[in-house]
Formats: sequence, structure tokens, C-alpha cells
Amino acid sequence: MAHKFINEIEPGLTIDDVYMVKEPILRSTTRGDLYIAMFLADRTGQLNGRMWQASEEVYRSLPKPGFIHIRGRSELYQDNLQIVVNNVTIVDTANVCLDDFLARTKGNIDQMFEGLKKNLALIKNPQLKALVARFLADNELMEKFRNAPGGTSLHHNYLGGLLEHTCNMMKVAVAILPLYPDLQPDLVLAAIFLHDMGKTAELSYDMAFSYTDAGQLMGHITQGLLMVNQKADALAAKGTPIDKAVLEALGHIILSHHGKFEFGSPKLPATPEAFMVYYIDDLDAKLNQVTAAIENETGDSNWTGWQRALTTRLYRKRIQ
Amino acid sequence: MAHKFINEIEPGLTIDDVYMVKEPILRSTTRGDLYIAMFLADRTGQLNGRMWQASEEVYRSLPKPGFIHIRGRSELYQDNLQIVVNNVTIVDTANVCLDDFLARTKGNIDQMFEGLKKNLALIKNPQLKALVARFLADNELMEKFRNAPGGTSLHHNYLGGLLEHTCNMMKVAVAILPLYPDLQPDLVLAAIFLHDMGKTAELSYDMAFSYTDAGQLMGHITQGLLMVNQKADALAAKGTPIDKAVLEALGHIILSHHGKFEFGSPKLPATPEAFMVYYIDDLDAKLNQVTAAIENETGDSNWTGWQRALTTRLYRKRIQ
Amino acid sequence: MAHKFINEIEPGLTIDDVYMVKEPILRSTTRGDLYIAMFLADRTGQLNGRMWQASEEVYRSLPKPGFIHIRGRSELYQDNLQIVVNNVTIVDTANVCLDDFLARTKGNIDQMFEGLKKNLALIKNPQLKALVARFLADNELMEKFRNAPGGTSLHHNYLGGLLEHTCNMMKVAVAILPLYPDLQPDLVLAAIFLHDMGKTAELSYDMAFSYTDAGQLMGHITQGLLMVNQKADALAAKGTPIDKAVLEALGHIILSHHGKFEFGSPKLPATPEAFMVYYIDDLDAKLNQVTAAIENETGDSNWTGWQRALTTRLYRKRIQ
Amino acid sequence: MAHKFINEIEPGLTIDDVYMVKEPILRSTTRGDLYIAMFLADRTGQLNGRMWQASEEVYRSLPKPGFIHIRGRSELYQDNLQIVVNNVTIVDTANVCLDDFLARTKGNIDQMFEGLKKNLALIKNPQLKALVARFLADNELMEKFRNAPGGTSLHHNYLGGLLEHTCNMMKVAVAILPLYPDLQPDLVLAAIFLHDMGKTAELSYDMAFSYTDAGQLMGHITQGLLMVNQKADALAAKGTPIDKAVLEALGHIILSHHGKFEFGSPKLPATPEAFMVYYIDDLDAKLNQVTAAIENETGDSNWTGWQRALTTRLYRKRIQ
Amino acid sequence: MAHKFINEIEPGLTIDDVYMVKEPILRSTTRGDLYIAMFLADRTGQLNGRMWQASEEVYRSLPKPGFIHIRGRSELYQDNLQIVVNNVTIVDTANVCLDDFLARTKGNIDQMFEGLKKNLALIKNPQLKALVARFLADNELMEKFRNAPGGTSLHHNYLGGLLEHTCNMMKVAVAILPLYPDLQPDLVLAAIFLHDMGKTAELSYDMAFSYTDAGQLMGHITQGLLMVNQKADALAAKGTPIDKAVLEALGHIILSHHGKFEFGSPKLPATPEAFMVYYIDDLDAKLNQVTAAIENETGDSNWTGWQRALTTRLYRKRIQ
Amino acid sequence: MAHKFINEIEPGLTIDDVYMVKEPILRSTTRGDLYIAMFLADRTGQLNGRMWQASEEVYRSLPKPGFIHIRGRSELYQDNLQIVVNNVTIVDTANVCLDDFLARTKGNIDQMFEGLKKNLALIKNPQLKALVARFLADNELMEKFRNAPGGTSLHHNYLGGLLEHTCNMMKVAVAILPLYPDLQPDLVLAAIFLHDMGKTAELSYDMAFSYTDAGQLMGHITQGLLMVNQKADALAAKGTPIDKAVLEALGHIILSHHGKFEFGSPKLPATPEAFMVYYIDDLDAKLNQVTAAIENETGDSNWTGWQRALTTRLYRKRIQ
Repeated sequence: MAHKFINEIEPGLTIDDVYMVKEPILRSTTRGDLYIAMFLADRTGQLNGRMWQASEEVYRSLPKPGFIHIRGRSELYQDNLQIVVNNVTIVDTANVCLDDFLARTKGNIDQMFEGLKKNLALIKNPQLKALVARFLADNELMEKFRNAPGGTSLHHNYLGGLLEHTCNMMKVAVAILPLYPDLQPDLVLAAIFLHDMGKTAELSYDMAFSYTDAGQLMGHITQGLLMVNQKADALAAKGTPIDKAVLEALGHIILSHHGKFEFGSPKLPATPEAFMVYYIDDLDAKLNQVTAAIENETGDSNWTGWQRALTTRLYRKRIQ
Repeated sequence: MAHKFINEIEPGLTIDDVYMVKEPILRSTTRGDLYIAMFLADRTGQLNGRMWQASEEVYRSLPKPGFIHIRGRSELYQDNLQIVVNNVTIVDTANVCLDDFLARTKGNIDQMFEGLKKNLALIKNPQLKALVARFLADNELMEKFRNAPGGTSLHHNYLGGLLEHTCNMMKVAVAILPLYPDLQPDLVLAAIFLHDMGKTAELSYDMAFSYTDAGQLMGHITQGLLMVNQKADALAAKGTPIDKAVLEALGHIILSHHGKFEFGSPKLPATPEAFMVYYIDDLDAKLNQVTAAIENETGDSNWTGWQRALTTRLYRKRIQ
Repeated sequence: MAHKFINEIEPGLTIDDVYMVKEPILRSTTRGDLYIAMFLADRTGQLNGRMWQASEEVYRSLPKPGFIHIRGRSELYQDNLQIVVNNVTIVDTANVCLDDFLARTKGNIDQMFEGLKKNLALIKNPQLKALVARFLADNELMEKFRNAPGGTSLHHNYLGGLLEHTCNMMKVAVAILPLYPDLQPDLVLAAIFLHDMGKTAELSYDMAFSYTDAGQLMGHITQGLLMVNQKADALAAKGTPIDKAVLEALGHIILSHHGKFEFGSPKLPATPEAFMVYYIDDLDAKLNQVTAAIENETGDSNWTGWQRALTTRLYRKRIQ
Repeated sequence: MAHKFINEIEPGLTIDDVYMVKEPILRSTTRGDLYIAMFLADRTGQLNGRMWQASEEVYRSLPKPGFIHIRGRSELYQDNLQIVVNNVTIVDTANVCLDDFLARTKGNIDQMFEGLKKNLALIKNPQLKALVARFLADNELMEKFRNAPGGTSLHHNYLGGLLEHTCNMMKVAVAILPLYPDLQPDLVLAAIFLHDMGKTAELSYDMAFSYTDAGQLMGHITQGLLMVNQKADALAAKGTPIDKAVLEALGHIILSHHGKFEFGSPKLPATPEAFMVYYIDDLDAKLNQVTAAIENETGDSNWTGWQRALTTRLYRKRIQ
Repeated sequence: MAHKFINEIEPGLTIDDVYMVKEPILRSTTRGDLYIAMFLADRTGQLNGRMWQASEEVYRSLPKPGFIHIRGRSELYQDNLQIVVNNVTIVDTANVCLDDFLARTKGNIDQMFEGLKKNLALIKNPQLKALVARFLADNELMEKFRNAPGGTSLHHNYLGGLLEHTCNMMKVAVAILPLYPDLQPDLVLAAIFLHDMGKTAELSYDMAFSYTDAGQLMGHITQGLLMVNQKADALAAKGTPIDKAVLEALGHIILSHHGKFEFGSPKLPATPEAFMVYYIDDLDAKLNQVTAAIENETGDSNWTGWQRALTTRLYRKRIQ
Repeated sequence: MAHKFINEIEPGLTIDDVYMVKEPILRSTTRGDLYIAMFLADRTGQLNGRMWQASEEVYRSLPKPGFIHIRGRSELYQDNLQIVVNNVTIVDTANVCLDDFLARTKGNIDQMFEGLKKNLALIKNPQLKALVARFLADNELMEKFRNAPGGTSLHHNYLGGLLEHTCNMMKVAVAILPLYPDLQPDLVLAAIFLHDMGKTAELSYDMAFSYTDAGQLMGHITQGLLMVNQKADALAAKGTPIDKAVLEALGHIILSHHGKFEFGSPKLPATPEAFMVYYIDDLDAKLNQVTAAIENETGDSNWTGWQRALTTRLYRKRIQ
């Protein structure tokens, strides 16, 4: 049975479905009866939930956060929709259709990944080729890479977003590299593949999009650089070391791809290839962010609401 | 006879050639004799010049700056090369091979302009088509546009640089627009053509690259916007007005294409098309600047000198 | 009958008056009945309104925003005052006393405009005189100029505020120009008159203070500059062209009058006259903003609330 | 006999006049003979001086810096004018016409000071009146105040410049205060008189314009505030204390009159009077700086050189 | 009887205790009955209070803010706890146990103050010794100093916090001064004692932590500097003047101890001692702020909430 | 024979010693004779050198840069001292007393290193203990660590400076950690040891202080983090893995120890230990820089020259 999405619920419906429960709190009414206040959420939004006649036992059993199957009813309370929960069952994450809870790219992940590999096959430099192959051969990492979001909020913030973003950047690079013949294409392509690889370790995206402890303490730029060096160490251990100069030139692009210190790059771009990767990354991220903000805006105004990260509102009207 | 370039002159040569004279000053020696100190320049550099036994009459006749034919001799004075000038004739600018004095694009101007027009032919919106046609039909302006530099110092700072930059941006846009299907290609293409059109009025490039008074007082962004509105007024007077909404969307891209207030844009990008033009402009300008700085660096170091505008030195070593 | 202002309504009153309706929403109660939630506003504030037993037809007929005549009653609901609306009639804007809905200058518009013209008559330069006369002769524009607010929020944010601000700046200039004899008074006076003329196009102020599409895309600085150039083109078409140098010097002041890039000026002041106009504009705007914030503060504290734009609270206590 | 100014000296003249000697150094020639290199300066500039056949005794006797009477001859050495000094006599500062060495206001100091006092007489508040009178009665301080420069480099950087600047600000205030009736004129006038009083202690201007140790360690803003409090303490000791609230309101204007933290104000303007003093100070300083830069520019260009403090060049051409 | 703290109140309790009343408002219900809405607070938080059947007389008698003894009952209203007040008595501040209302240092004030004096006894310079003694002898000031908070919100924001912070800085200085033998220890110790002395005048902390008028207008840096100069004037009047150079060096440290203009220092550190005091101040303040934020965080997350002043969240997990 | 230092050379001496040659250039005189211009340097400064009657062969043989033994004579040329070189022999770096050419810490390296190890022995956490031991056991790295400078220019810019700085920071930490009992001392001590370990790879200091390619491309923060992870990988390979949480907490301190993005930290401090290391690092670096600038200032002024990195001049006068 299809999931009843939060943004489809109207007042007066019988609810019998799985939702993510967030921030449950045990409270007592004026009469002294215990009840549980909580948020019930899926990828389309969240509502207040109230479970009257609750017990401390039920409260303790709730995941914080996690998935529960509830039976109850939607109602309007002071003009706000809420769900009165009569019955609760804990649901194992493994049994949940995560797509109901986490937004997912509209693209086809297999196709995008194949396209990416095809473009990576253009790399001729044997050392970069070996390094990229080593990453592609790491199935566990690639599985993460195929599913990770591009971020938690600003752009490509949905499952598969990292792959979509990487893939699109690669297409842009392949399209414009012939216009800049002084650049070393192999470096650009390998760096685009790896520039955000650290996001697989920085972000947590099993139930919601958030940061891991390591992600907050180190950041995906540093984490990605560590991955590249660990793969290179492994290759060296196998007798096929990567030249220090290659590792440094590649590492420099990863470190500098945010383009500015205040965005967490410890080094500013200092090679033509680093400049190109920085610009393509920014272009693709911003166009995703801008077109998504325009598309997601509700209402009829010619303008979206204020976009804090862009310090402007966006104009939605088209010229024809 | 080929021009003897400044950077080819060695000590002890007889000089009989045309140079640009800059900042001539009349001075007297300890003995009370008058002499003229001046700089002699072409596009490869400049040297000190000294004309002994000068008169106030000769001094007054000198253009400041301008071209002169000199006869004299190069010599080392305190380890510095200088030119002792024996005889001077004023040369009309019309008789000078300007290419000896102003750097020029390595590209073919006619071919680039044809390529640009071919890409502009992709525009389907009838109003943008009419507006672009109006510009292309302005022969005087197009002649300036084909020869203007892209700037005085940072990037594309040579004759034809503006065309080369515009042309390259157009190629990038045509290559990547299919990857961003939500954008309005006609707006992007027309805006790229016109984004720096104001530089034809902002810059002076008949003898050296500098700013006009109007350029310093108003700036090419405002000047370009005025041009677009004047062409639109002219079309309206002919009975084919451009919609206000089209003019505003196009004008917005021109105004915001520097992307940040501190770079002289009075408005920040607020449409997807404005973001794309801003990024393509910055990408093409920076890659030109970076590769030129690497190419022009003399010496054997792996690094260029400090690039003030980029707040870094640039790495010149390639990976293979 | 005098309008009952929002800030005069107490609980338990019968309401029979015209208000602006904003953001009406059609909702259904738990029982499935439709009702309309809306804001009811005038220039003194806004209240929640509720129309129970509403129909989709009534909802559709409501302007969004616009004026309605309502019959109903004020009541306290959860400590908040709201208006229960029993009956609604749409009111044409033409029949509304706009002064009830938009704040208006305390000054006399006719007198201020006459004062302004008297000061403009001090201009002796024939070209600036002709240009100013051309603006004064544009009745439609002058009608807008006399009524436009000085801004939407920070200073002179009331009908006639633009005129009041311009008029006051002119008085300051006339008073202090004799102290700075090196400056060209005609340029200062003409520039003050025109510096914010673009606000007549940037702002919308028929029902509330907001920005037009063109205003958000281009900004009043650019719009004002376009107006000046269009008037100059019209004069030229009539055989009395304005010197390029005059237009540029005047245009420069308009472009630079915000004084800093981050406030939307594409050029920084580069003439003494531009510096004077920038300072007088800032002085008059800030003093209006500061004295209004002090005057409008309610409560007995010696200090106003935090003024975000000034990054301080303001001290209200006087020394005697 | 009139002083021969540095900027009037041509090669080949006999020199017999007083100059300021700066940074004398004792050196030995290749042959082992001692000579003294020094700068010789007055208010129009400085030249290299060389005294051959010098002794350590002469060197030690030289003030560093100070005034000397020299006899010698001007000559061109490697295109640079220098003075060969044959004979040196130390000159006491008391016997020097300081006007030859320090630039001085073109205004009449007595007249300006009388004008200032006349405007200060407008103050009605008895406490501010008493405080101002206390300052005016301090003859030693007033003598410094009448002669101090307004600064070392940026604006009013000449003897009497502080008085001229204060006097001009007072005139501006008197002219525009009627336009802002909500402000307390007495506070504005007293604050303008005292806002830069600390410069009499911050700056040293007996031979050249520089900072005192206390000036560099504390700054004129803090020093001026201390003066105000010391005068108030003295008045209190005499039985006529100034109200704390008056002292704080006045002190706040002095502290905040630079308007921004980065210009050394420890507090931002928080009263209307503080805003007015800040703007009048900035306006008068910048107009002095801008018109002086334009006036002092040599050469024929329409533009001055780059003004680092204004981040622009200045346009010198007038419209008619 | 022990005070019932706000954060210990559960629904359904009888309340008979003293609380601080804040922002009382007189309102009327729909039926026209008057009631008073107010906040009831102590140092653990605040709750809504409602007094039904109130009169204008009762309302007028309430301190705004101040202390009241209430009798009433706690209840849940729309899931929020509130207190229904039946009876109110005004309580004089003198009869209130302030510790229930203002947080207080966990340290022992007497012990800390003794420790501080012991460290101050290390000062050998007779003039600094005399100046410090003069401060220590000012009992009224020392009483304030012993009780003042270190600030209103960021760090050491509790009674005795200023002493605790000063005391801790002194310990750090005594511990590390031997490692920096070039510094003048007496200056460092005296400056630490006095660096925030102005906070006794800047802050008000009799009922809640806030700023005095003088504090907002002048700031504790300037106020502290004035105190130092007034003590020095008093010493001079007694025949033991402090050298100007000592006062300036000490004053410079006080003025510059915030280290940056944007934090309200009118001068940047320019002596080694000023640098040391700045760093020790910042280190001790930030470590207090960081460890307090970690300690006060509720919930189980490894991370605290966003710390706006630190622009990061803080990591709470320890390594073992 | 003791080296004759550059700053001890007077005119007219016979020179027979080893100097570093920098930037040699082959030129020809007016007569066509070849000569070599070069700089001759040691750690006290540099002079111009001229070798007349040079040949292309000699020129080619010169290291660029490197060490040469010269015979010649010092002379004054246009008031500047220069060395006329008659004879040149190339000297192998191994045969050079590097201390003559690179400044060296005044501290005893062995003693400092022993002191450091003693403080490291305070670490109790077994994992941090193991990690630190692994570093101490890497003799090649420790040799570099003992000799590396702390930087190229700002602070501790001499051989052994890195050790001195690390050692001093450790002493500060050991002295003040007892005052902050909430912090984890082991983390602080280990992090101080390792915080700048990457400088051994970032800097080159065999002949002069400069950056390696890897240093410029990656930076010592990233390089140090890589070292820590490689040592941890090696320990894991030996069966004693370091907990991920320990590595991350330690890594975070290394990454954030510059405290601000603009100084190259990709993460801001987010643990109390990270804040302490950041402050101790900054304190020790700035005090070294400030006291060195004061000590190295020549002349009698109370003030040093302008310190660009500190945006102030420094006051040198002591209070007694």
C-alpha cells in the first residue's frame, strides 16, 4: 500500500502508516495524565503528533529518531493539523522504504554512474588511471558514493545528489576542456571524480541528512584528501606507487576547490586545473540551487522568498 | 624594415626607428645646458631616453604621449640600458604600425566574429533577435567591438581581446546549455554578446590601453546598459518595441554579471541565466589570466611571481 | 465617517469599515466546514481575521491584496485580538482614502515642491537648467515624484517621503555650498534633484510599499540614470543636446551617491560634488531614520530596541 | 632676506640659507675620508645634501632633526639635484621662521577663533556653557588648539588646520541645525568644539607633523575625553559640577565621532547629535582632502593620481 | 523555606513564593474584565503568569521589573505551563535572597580576592604599586568589583564573574611570565587587575544583568581608563604623581585589550605587555564560554547547539 | 678563520671568504666586455657583487643559488658598498658552516628536545602515548623537526625555531592546564607536539628559508594531518590501532589551530582543547614576533617601523 505522504493528509482521515518519529517528549496534562508529544515526518514535511494515555514504557521504547507504524486520526487543532496517535509499533529501518523519507535524485543512478565511468575512461595518464581504478574497485565506497546526497541543505540535497553533481560537472568539463587547450584534462577529470568523495564520510544519510562527528571535526575536503592518500599508499604497497608530484597536484585541487578560505579551503587555487574545477563546481552547485529554489517556490509571485545564501530573492518570470 | 623591438635592443646599437614617447621632461645639466629625459616604448617594454643639446622648441613639439622617429644609439649607463637620441621627427599615428605598440590577440578576428554571429543565429526569441541584429548592424560599434581589448591589465588585455573573450564565452555557453534545460538559452546568448559591450566606450586603445573619462566616471556595466536601452529606443521609434520584461531581464544580466557588489555590479544575480553568465565570464577571464601569467613567466622556477589579483603564486610544473 | 484604525480597536467592538485584506487562505474546520483566515490591515497595523461559513466563491472574489468593507466584531482569542467577519464587500481602490492605509509625510507636498523648484531656479548652467526643466515639465513623472516614498522601510518610508528627502537635501546643500567655494553648485543642485528619481520606477506604492519587478532587477540608481539619458536624448532630438561631459559628471553623481559598492553604487565618488551629494544624502537619511526610531519607540526605557541597520540601540534621553 | 624654498632651487646656485636637516649619516668614502649624507628640507620638499671633509665632531653637533644654516652649492648628480654643503651652523628653533618649514592654513587664525567663539556663544545650556568656557579660559591649551594641524597627512594637514576644520564644522552645523529641529543644538555645538581637542596632545607639530608617544598609545579620541573629564572635575572642585548625564552625552559624541569601529571609535553613534557630528566631520574632512588633492595635482591630466585612502582617482575637469 | 525554582515547577502545584515580575500588561477579556499578563522569573527561567480579576490599582503597584510574593497555582495551558496568580504582595529588593535570581560564581569570593591581592603584591614598580593600592583602598569600588559579573551573556555572566575572570587571568600571567623574560611583569599584573574595572560602571546587576546608560554610551574600556586617570589625579593631588609614561603604557593596555577595532578597542596592541594581556583575556573568556556551553547543553547529542558568537557547534564527547 | 659577516664589511677591505651567491646575471659593458652582477649574502644581509672580465663559462658554473669562495675587495660605489670579485671557487654545501648563512635559535636544541620529551611523558592516554612514541621513534623526521624554522618570516624564523616554539607552547600548556580542569590535558599536549609537524615538509631550509612545492600546494596543516594518519595506519598495521574518535579529536585540533578560515584552517575550533592550542600558538608566535621586532629595530626612536602583519608600530620604551 502506498505511503500516505504528510503533505497529502487532510483533517479527519484515519491514519495507518509508517512515519519517522522525532523529538518525542513525555508530558502530563493538568489532570496528571501522561501523554507523548512528538513530530511525525516523511520527506514531504512533518506534523505534530499527540498520544494521549501514554506510559513511560511506551515513551522509552520510541526511537529518537526512528520509524514507527502508527494508527490514529488527523484533526485540526487551533487551525493546525495534528495527528492523534492511538497505537504505536516500532519499525526496523531495514523494513522501511527509505525513499518515502529521504528525497532522491530524479536521475537514474545506474545510468549516471555508467556515464561517469565512461568519462573517467578518457583519462590517459597511467598513474591517475590507476588511482581512479582503485577507487572504482572499492565497492563499499562506490555504493556510498552512488547514494550520498550532495549536501544537507543548499544544493543537490537528496540521495544520489553527490553522484548527479559529480556526473554533471564531468559533462561540463568534457564539453569545455577543448576550449582551454593549455589545461591538463586528466587532472581535471580525476579531480572532479574525487573532489567531494569525502562527503561519503562527512555526511550521514540513513534516515535524515546530517553530519557525522568526523565530518564536523574534519570536513569532506580533508577527508577526501585522506582517502586519496590512503588509496595511493595501498597502490604503493602493491608496487605501483603514484608520483609525489601527481598526488600533490591532485591533492591541491581537492583542497582548493571551494575557492575561498571562508568556505573551508585551506589553499587557494594555484593551477589552471584547480581554477577550472572550482568554477565548474560552483556553477553546477549554484544552478542546481537556483533552479530548485525557483521550482519549489509555491504561490504566484514573480519572486521567490529571500535566499539567505544568495543574499537575494530570485526572479521566476520567463521572458515568453 | 621590421621594427626593432625594445626587448631586442642590446648595448651599442645604432637606433633608427619609431617608438612611442612618454612623459618627456625638459631639464638642464649642471652646466646649464638643456636636455630632454623621456621614456621610449613599444609593446615589449620601455627604456630611458636622453636627448642632449635639446631646445625648448623641440620639447614643445613632442607629443605627450605619441610617436616619434628617432636616430641615436643604445648604451649602458650605470648598468641600465638607455638610448641617446640625436635626432627626432614627429610621426603621425596614422603612419604607425600599431601592432608594434599594442599587443593583439593570436586569434583571427574575422573568423572569431563569424563564429560569434553563427552562435547568435541560434537565438529564436524574435525580440532578442531584433535587438542583437540592431547591434550587429551598427558597423561603427562593431568595428570597435572587434578591436577592443578585454581590459587594461588583468585578462584578455590585447587588441581583439574583448571579441576573443566574448567568443569563447559563447562557445562555453553553447556547449553546456543543454546540461541545464531549465535555463532560457536565448537570454544567455544575447547577454553574453552584450555583457561587455560597454568596454568599447570605457576603454581607450588607440595608442595604449587606458580608460576614457566616461569609462572612469560611469563604467562599462552602466555604459553597456545605456547602449542596450538606446538601441531598444531606436527599435521602438521604428515601430518594433522590445517588451519591457525582456529589456529588464537582459539588463539585469548585464548589471549583475560581475557577481559581487565590490566588483562594481549594482545588483546581484537573481535569475538562473544571470548566474550562468556570471560564472562563464569569471571562468573564462580567470583561465585566460592564469594561463597567461604562467606562459609569460620567465625563469626556471616551478612558480610564477606573486599574483596580487589572485592572492597566490601559480604552479607551472605539469604532471608528465 | 472616520476610519477606525487597527491600533484603536479594542475587544468587543462592532466593526463596519474598510480594511486592506492580505494573504487570505481558504481552510476547512475539523467538521469539514470551510472558513477563510486572512489579515486585516491599515497603516497602523494588522489583525487576524476569520470568516466562518465561507464559500469558495467568496474566497475567489477576494483581492489578494486589496480593499474590502467588512462587518463583524472584534474579540480576544487566546489573548490575541482578532476580527470575526460576518460580511464582506469588495471595494475599488479608487474609492478608498489611501491615507488610511499608507503613511504620508507630515509636510505639505505643494509647499515642498514649490520650495524645491525655487532652489532649482538657482541653477545657472544652461544645460543643467534645460535638463532640469525637462524633468519638471514631465507632469506624469512629477506626480509620481511628489507622492513616492523615500524607501520601503529604513527612512522617509511614507508617501511624499521622496520629495521631503530631496527637498531637505536641497536646503542643506544651499546652506553649506557657500562654505565650499571650490565646488560647482549647479552640479550639486541638479544631482540632488535627480539622485533618487529612479525610485519613482523602483517602488510600488499604490496600496503598500514594495518593489516593482524592474526595481528589483535594475535598481533606482540605474533607473534614474536611464531617465536622465532619455531626457537628454529627447532634448538632443529637439536640437538642444546636452554636452557629453555634463551628462557624465551628473551621471557619475547619481551612480556614486550610495558611496560604497556594497550599497549598490557601481562607482565610488570621484568628484567633490559627488562626495557632497553622498554625504548630504546619508546625513539626511540617517537623521530621519534615527529621529523616527526614537519617536516611534513605545515604553519608558531610555533606549530604543536594537536597530539592526545601525547596529546599535538609540539613546532617547535628552540632557535637560 | 626671503628663504629660498627647496622647490625653487635650480642647479648651479649658491646656497646660503636655513633648512631642516633630517637623518644625517656619517660615512666614509673609498679613500677613507669621512662625509655626511643628510636630507635638507622645508615645507616645499627635500633634497639630498652631502658634506665632504666632514668630521665626527660636526656630525655629533647636528640636530636629528633640527635646523641648520648652510653655505654651499646646488648641483645635478645623476639627474638628481643635490646640495653640496661646505659649511654648517646650528640654528636654534626659536630663531627660525617656522612658516617656512610647516604649511599653515590660508585662513586668518584670529578671525577663525573669534568666529568660533561667536558660534559657541549660541549655547544656552548652562552646564555646557560652563564647560566650554573652562576650555576657552585655558590659554595654554587654546594656544595649542589655534595652531595644531588637523592631521599629519589626510586632511587639514597644516598649522591652524584643526581650528579651520573645527570652525568650518561649526558653520555647517549652525547652517543646518534649523532643518533638524529634533536635535539638541547645544550638544552639537559643544561636541564640535571638543571633538578633536585631543589632537593638541596626540600630534607634535613644532618642526614637522608627527605623533607623540601618548598620541600613538592612546589616540586623540581618548585624550579628548580625558580632557573633558578633567575640566569637569576641576569645575566640580570649584562647586559647579556638570551633570553625569550631560558629560556622558557629550562624551559619547566624542567617542563615536569617527562613526565606525575600524576608524578607532570605541562606540558607534547612538544619539541624533552623535550622527550629525559624525557626518559633518566626515563631510568637511573629505571635501578638504578631495579639493586639496585636485588642487595639488600637477600635470595636465583630467585625473589625479590614485588616492589610496579614497580608493579612486579624482576627476579634475569642470563642466564649463 | 527554600525558594521553589522556576525549572522545578510542575503542573498542579500550589505556589506561595517570591519571583521577579517582568513586563506586566493590563488587558481586558472579551467580557470586559481586566486581567494582568506578566512573566514570573528567577535565575532558572521564566513562566507566563495570569492574574484574573485584576484592577488598574494592582497593576500600577507592580514594579516593572521587581520582586513580588505571589500565591497561586501552576497549570498547563495549551501544553505550556503557566501560573495563575490569586494574590500579589510587593517585596522590597532588600528582603530578597538575590542568589535565587542572579547566578553567582561557584568560587569563593573572599578567597579569590585574597589570591588576587597576593598576586598584586608581586608588583615592584613603586608607581604601579601606589596606583594599585589606591584602587584596593577604595572600598566601595572593591565591593562592586567583587560582585560584578564578567558580562551580560557571553562569558563569566554571573555575580563574582568579573573577579573570577580577573583572578584566573592573574594566575595564568604569573604562571607564564617567566617564559617571556623580555616582558615587564609589573605592567602585565597591574593591567590585568584594571583591564575590566570599568565593568563595575558599565554593568547593572542589582536584579538582572544589563547595561547602565553610561555603559552603553561610553563602554567599560573608556570608563576604566577614566578611573585610572582619576585615581592618578588623586595621587598627584596628594603629592605622589604617577609618571605620564607609566600612565600611558598602562592606559594603552586597557584601551587595546580587546585586540581588534571591531570589538571596541580604539587602539591595537603595540607593546608586548598589551599583546599578552589581550591573549590571556581572550583565552580565559573563551575557555569559560566554551566549557559553560558544553556543560549547560541538555540532551544526549555529541554536539551542542549552534554557538553564534563562535560560529560553530561544540563537540562534547571526550576521548575516553 | 672566522667568517667575515656582511654587516661587518667596511669599504676598502680585502675579501677572502665564502658567501651565498644569489641571482647572478651575465651582462656586457658599453665596450662589449662581459661582467657578472650578483648578490653576495649571509645571514646578516647581502651586498651587490661585480665580477669584471667574466666569461660565460664562469657564469654557467655558478650555483643559482649556492655557495662560492671569493677573493676581492669592498668599495663604495655611489654611496653603496659593493664587492668587486676577482676570483671565484664553487663550494660544496657540505663544506659550509650553515650557521653563518641561516639564523639559528639561541636555545640549546638538545636541551629543548629533552624538555619536550619530558613534558610529553606526562601523557597518560595509551593511544596518544603510542602515537607520540611512534613520532619520536622516527629519527629522520625528528632530525628535521629539531632543525626546522618556525616559519619563513613572521615568527621563530630561524633554525630550531619550530622546536623552540613547540617547546615553549608545551611549557605554557603545562603551566596553565591546572587552571582549566575541564580540559583533557593529554589531547592538548599531543596536539601541541604535532600541530606544526607538517612544517618539516612545508618548508625548505637547507640554504635559505623557503617553501617546498608540496608546501605551497598543500600547506603544513594538511601535511601534518597526513603524517598523523600515516603513523596511525602504521600502528594499526602493527596491531595497535588508534581509535577513530581519538584520531578525529586530535586531527581537529591540528586542522583548526590557526583559529580562522582566512589563516588557512579548514575548520574552526570546536573543542575546548582546540581553543587552548589555538590561543597558546597565537600567544607564543606573536610574543616572539613582537619582541624580535623590538629587539631588531635599529635607531633611537621609541617606536619600531610599521609592522604590516600587526598593522601597528611597536613601542620600545620601558617604564623604568
